[in-house]
Amino acid sequence: MSETPLIERIFQNAQFVQALGIELTAWGKGWCETRVKVVPSHRQQHGFIHAGVLMTLADHTCGGAAATTIPDGKDVITVENKISFLRPATGNELICLADVLRTGKNLVFTEAELSVQSDEGKVMVAKASSTLAVIPLKARVAADG
Amino acid sequence: MSETPLIERIFQNAQFVQALGIELTAWGKGWCETRVKVVPSHRQQHGFIHAGVLMTLADHTCGGAAATTIPDGKDVITVENKISFLRPATGNELICLADVLRTGKNLVFTEAELSVQSDEGKVMVAKASSTLAVIPLKARVAADG
Amino acid sequence: MSETPLIERIFQNAQFVQALGIELTAWGKGWCETRVKVVPSHRQQHGFIHAGVLMTLADHTCGGAAATTIPDGKDVITVENKISFLRPATGNELICLADVLRTGKNLVFTEAELSVQSDEGKVMVAKASSTLAVIPLKARVAADG
Amino acid sequence: MSETPLIERIFQNAQFVQALGIELTAWGKGWCETRVKVVPSHRQQHGFIHAGVLMTLADHTCGGAAATTIPDGKDVITVENKISFLRPATGNELICLADVLRTGKNLVFTEAELSVQSDEGKVMVAKASSTLAVIPLKARVAADG
Repeated sequence: MSETPLIERIFQNAQFVQALGIELTAWGKGWCETRVKVVPSHRQQHGFIHAGVLMTLADHTCGGAAATTIPDGKDVITVENKISFLRPATGNELICLADVLRTGKNLVFTEAELSVQSDEGKVMVAKASSTLAVIPLKARVAADG
Repeated sequence: MSETPLIERIFQNAQFVQALGIELTAWGKGWCETRVKVVPSHRQQHGFIHAGVLMTLADHTCGGAAATTIPDGKDVITVENKISFLRPATGNELICLADVLRTGKNLVFTEAELSVQSDEGKVMVAKASSTLAVIPLKARVAADG
Repeated sequence: MSETPLIERIFQNAQFVQALGIELTAWGKGWCETRVKVVPSHRQQHGFIHAGVLMTLADHTCGGAAATTIPDGKDVITVENKISFLRPATGNELICLADVLRTGKNLVFTEAELSVQSDEGKVMVAKASSTLAVIPLKARVAADG
Repeated sequence: MSETPLIERIFQNAQFVQALGIELTAWGKGWCETRVKVVPSHRQQHGFIHAGVLMTLADHTCGGAAATTIPDGKDVITVENKISFLRPATGNELICLADVLRTGKNLVFTEAELSVQSDEGKVMVAKASSTLAVIPLKARVAADG
């Protein structure tokens, strides 16, 4: 088993997350912060950041936060996500902060705030909630095999 | 104003949707079908298709379905999304079918099924619901400007 | 252990469901239908049926549907619910039809349609999704004790 | 037009809320706190507080919070709700605190925490999010008529 913490591997080994440029910037027990520099390929048809970018960031950051709260030999996988888009998202950088609301034996409940840096400071553009299932770590190997 | 239907423009002009390889494959009044060929950069850390790819597909296909039901001079933007991941998603192609549940003056309610083609036929991997707001078409121009 | 099917006990033993007048009207493997006669105490401040009545009906009917798909010795409990209110709900009777989308070892995914009978026939007023956890049947005894 | 604030009328005139014993206990611009004494008729089949009671409390408290942020002559109605049940809810009293995340011209985004008082202090049992539509105040009169 690797000595790299699970949360770091969750970001390193997720190709979609790497492809979008999402970075794990800070974390502790029960929380996770990520950032992504916004590029033209993240945009939707109105020029705003696509909902899919926001949802990917929220989902993965919630997964990261959840991963910090489970026992060794376990892993997490998303059961469901909900996200509310408070306002159209523009700007050069998205910031996501996820928190664990509760970790149980089988399920982890999390939520995330997504913000952009604007001239008026940090503005929340979306709020998400995500439920994850706790699974054996070997599930990953099986899925890769 | 372009003669291209709004739904086609929604897919053509969304750079994130193009970057992921999402294709609009069929549509009619109140529904929209899309497909995406799965490539390695769509994967998460277990080798499954990333939740973010599924959510992007669901969101945009719901938007497409909604766009077929609103009056000329109007456009749609996502208010909120919820998605349940029924099983890990693997396979070469994702198919999404979105339907409008109700179109009102200000809001459109939609839902979407996401499936993969497997040896045992089409298998549903996720189910989503999405609410969209009806906005003036000029909002797009303003956002682009 | 009682010979009464789990789904019937779920309705008989839920005092809140009885207090609201919710009736289990039909069910089979993977689905459940319920009805409730609308009374003045179900109303909200605009005279419509309160969202809480609709959500209670959806939640419990999803639980009923889930209960028809799990092994003996198991029970279900709600993890999360989402509901979209397509239009204000009025009328004399609410009808709810819930279906299981997938039953796994630990989780059951369900959805429900809520309709009212109107002069123009059956009209859908809300659509819900609900995730349930599969738990040991004894959890109920413990909770009662 | 009444001089009673909209938020107070929303609670006074909602028969279902009165029937459940829900009380508006505190509020200010952008937030709302409510409480309900738990009685046997609030229970589900395991002896826990029914999800429907929690959802009703969350929905109405979110509506109350939203009502404090809209202009005179306007009212609110729920578009959609999502709730996560972090743990089974037991206890003598439920407390709900709702906050407005953003008020727009047509939509208000809110969230709510539901807690019970236990021997170990206040424990969060559920977390909800709710989107509301801003509607003309006269809609209420029409609905009542």
